[in-house]
Amino acid sequence: MHLQQKVLAKNDRLAQENRNWLRQRSVLAINLMSSPGAGKTTLLERTARELAGKVGISVIEGDQAAALDARRIRAAGCKVVQINTGAGCHLDAGMVAEGLRLLEPPGGSLVVIENVGNLVCPALFDLGEEARVVLASVTEGDDKPVKYPHMFRRADLVLVSKTDLLPYVDFDGKRHATDVRQVSPDALMLQLSATTGAGMQEWYDWLRRRTPAPPQE
Amino acid sequence: MHLQQKVLAKNDRLAQENRNWLRQRSVLAINLMSSPGAGKTTLLERTARELAGKVGISVIEGDQAAALDARRIRAAGCKVVQINTGAGCHLDAGMVAEGLRLLEPPGGSLVVIENVGNLVCPALFDLGEEARVVLASVTEGDDKPVKYPHMFRRADLVLVSKTDLLPYVDFDGKRHATDVRQVSPDALMLQLSATTGAGMQEWYDWLRRRTPAPPQE
Repeated sequence: MHLQQKVLAKNDRLAQENRNWLRQRSVLAINLMSSPGAGKTTLLERTARELAGKVGISVIEGDQAAALDARRIRAAGCKVVQINTGAGCHLDAGMVAEGLRLLEPPGGSLVVIENVGNLVCPALFDLGEEARVVLASVTEGDDKPVKYPHMFRRADLVLVSKTDLLPYVDFDGKRHATDVRQVSPDALMLQLSATTGAGMQEWYDWLRRRTPAPPQE
Repeated sequence: MHLQQKVLAKNDRLAQENRNWLRQRSVLAINLMSSPGAGKTTLLERTARELAGKVGISVIEGDQAAALDARRIRAAGCKVVQINTGAGCHLDAGMVAEGLRLLEPPGGSLVVIENVGNLVCPALFDLGEEARVVLASVTEGDDKPVKYPHMFRRADLVLVSKTDLLPYVDFDGKRHATDVRQVSPDALMLQLSATTGAGMQEWYDWLRRRTPAPPQE
């Protein structure tokens, strides 16, 4: 067995443990991935503010360095754990296991795992999440699903973000949707802007449909 | 020696061979890196068109999949080699050696190595380039030098791109410059827009200063 396969096999085992742990506690975890600067943290800030009192949200923040995003998310009212990967290009299931122990998410709540900004490496590592959400900003251009197929192939939801900037950039939404469909026929696609709030309601509906009820005592 | 160290040591050896090969032929190679969608290809398209007849340019295109960028660059008049990395997150010196053999760049010309769009992995791999250029688009936000320090630390030139979108995004140029300076005190910084052409002349001057004269016969 090659080293890379061994690393992935160990990761998959730990991811399955995370998944069992989350299901037993009736907690929904999503793995939020994108290029650097596609707007993951801005999306979460607005989501946390607008779902406050409706859905309990806690966050695992993955970054190479610094705790800027953790500060922003904490200011938006969420419990948060920051994980710095150093030279590493993605979170792995072991890091997430550690994060979950620290967060202690209550039953019936949502854990968002904000992965390191990267359209390549995070695609290979199952974290034990229930759903994979890929954020694709219109400023990155419409050719990303073709150039980074691994990331889009396993996406459950593709959020086309920063739609407020559509008038100023060259982004063919139809081409983008067709290319997402090509690699991931079952992925749902939504368009939104976390700056203006456009399209956010459908994202909230998607989250609330998936968040389990708290376990009966 | 750990496997990762072995991989890096082998890469560094091949990179030094590339560097010697390029210097013997009086060819300038630059390693162009950024997040996905920061505008590397658009920058190269305009650069190729505007420097046509002044600087000979050939391009090594790195992408996970597809040959979209190679087609764009070829249409702009450059000789180009496309390298697909599959699941890999960066080009390495061995891939570049192969690309150089295929391109056969003439003396006194420029080879641009357009790396896989990724602010993490490419930072670790020397390709034998004379200079590292990092493109940072204003749409990604001003916090990237703090969150991805490895990439910015070894940059010789940081190009702040898509400045035509500054009126529509939240980007603090002063903070960005201060944070780049913090991790890379000697890096030069330029602002430009490959869409409007603003700031491109300084980039061309930078390239022309560095491109060697053709060898004397």
